[in-house]
Amino acid sequence: MARLEVFGVEGLPEITPGDDLAAMIHAAAASQGDALVDGDVVLVTSKIVSKAEGRIVELVDVEPSEFAIRWSEKWEKDPRVTEVVLRESKRIIRQIGPVLITETHHGFCCANSGVDQSSSGGEGRILTLPVDPDATSRTHRSRFAELGVDVAVIMTDTFGRPWREGQTDVAIGIAGMNPLFSYIGQHDPHGHEFRVQEICTADELAAAGELVKGNTSRVPVAVVRGVDWERDDEATMSTVLRDAERDLFR
Amino acid sequence: MARLEVFGVEGLPEITPGDDLAAMIHAAAASQGDALVDGDVVLVTSKIVSKAEGRIVELVDVEPSEFAIRWSEKWEKDPRVTEVVLRESKRIIRQIGPVLITETHHGFCCANSGVDQSSSGGEGRILTLPVDPDATSRTHRSRFAELGVDVAVIMTDTFGRPWREGQTDVAIGIAGMNPLFSYIGQHDPHGHEFRVQEICTADELAAAGELVKGNTSRVPVAVVRGVDWERDDEATMSTVLRDAERDLFR
Repeated sequence: MARLEVFGVEGLPEITPGDDLAAMIHAAAASQGDALVDGDVVLVTSKIVSKAEGRIVELVDVEPSEFAIRWSEKWEKDPRVTEVVLRESKRIIRQIGPVLITETHHGFCCANSGVDQSSSGGEGRILTLPVDPDATSRTHRSRFAELGVDVAVIMTDTFGRPWREGQTDVAIGIAGMNPLFSYIGQHDPHGHEFRVQEICTADELAAAGELVKGNTSRVPVAVVRGVDWERDDEATMSTVLRDAERDLFR
Repeated sequence: MARLEVFGVEGLPEITPGDDLAAMIHAAAASQGDALVDGDVVLVTSKIVSKAEGRIVELVDVEPSEFAIRWSEKWEKDPRVTEVVLRESKRIIRQIGPVLITETHHGFCCANSGVDQSSSGGEGRILTLPVDPDATSRTHRSRFAELGVDVAVIMTDTFGRPWREGQTDVAIGIAGMNPLFSYIGQHDPHGHEFRVQEICTADELAAAGELVKGNTSRVPVAVVRGVDWERDDEATMSTVLRDAERDLFR
């Protein structure tokens, strides 16, 4: 039976554009006595990827639209931040009171297009999500392979959700493993088909990783060891993103 | 830094009404060499609680309403099952095509009021969610304490969610620990207030537990060891359930 170990990777320096994140994670894990091994799932917080990829917006350079200005004034928000949130979205899902729930260009449904005003390394700067989280995760996975370990990579972010208070970490990029585990066609011990059809293993792994990362400590990477993940070299988060046409809440 | 261990508890027999679940879990964990220790978080799948509490409905006893009959005929469903789903709900959130998303009497938003046609121990029977998952979890926690261990207890179920494919385990009952971890008023290393205000630790723990439980294997209990949970003897899932008035998706 599966028995998992979940731990954080500490000791990474402040990340700057161009950093070789996978190599830094590989080294940091080794130096804390947790050298990565084949089969590990490496959970990388999107924030450090955004930093490594220079997804930093200087607010002084942003010219907000009339729409952004009017709405921001009403809710005492910085219209330049609102402008970036709008640019990072392809549709607004809810705009009620000061809340702006959007669908990002990638297809993620979340508050403020995942734009991050915290930990961006200075006033007047914000971080946007990586352009292609799957592609970056594949790059990380390849780099880990060059360094000698066959691992799955999941990029994570912290999202809210309908109906329930509190945020949880979810997967936004993936490489090497199928993000979904299917029970379709399988039967329980009584011969019934399963009510549960598919589990989003990737999101459950992301959630498990958050438990050791925390958001105050500087632990932007977690490792889950012992998972029996399904190898998929073509893995992509697009299989997790429900089509808008099939979705009842957009 | 936190380092977690996540494992399943195997070897539980088929559960029947009146079973002393906490004692059975305590014994099963010990007999597999994983005796529970203070600080463990014990994740109990709601299905076995429903069985222990006799939340079994014999469909032959169910008289479906006119509304249940008409809708079920249209979508080729058993009207008696639909009737139980409606009785277990306090409102219908979406009824589109064959999909019925409801809010249960407890306040959980999920498909079919959490009614379970699988693993219920026979054709013609279905399982409904426990009546008061917090109360049952508190009973389990007290029983574990009598057996000598101070543990947190989370009851879990497997729910879908808007926007994303695949289900994940979430918490539906809790005892001993605050289900939410708050960052409100705290600051990141750069002096910004956190964008993340609250993490739903209980749901992240439920998700971590599912990774070792699986839905095919008979592993209805998982333990997460090493979590630094916040003690709260008054803990309840009601703090996680967003008020309908504040919710943008009901």
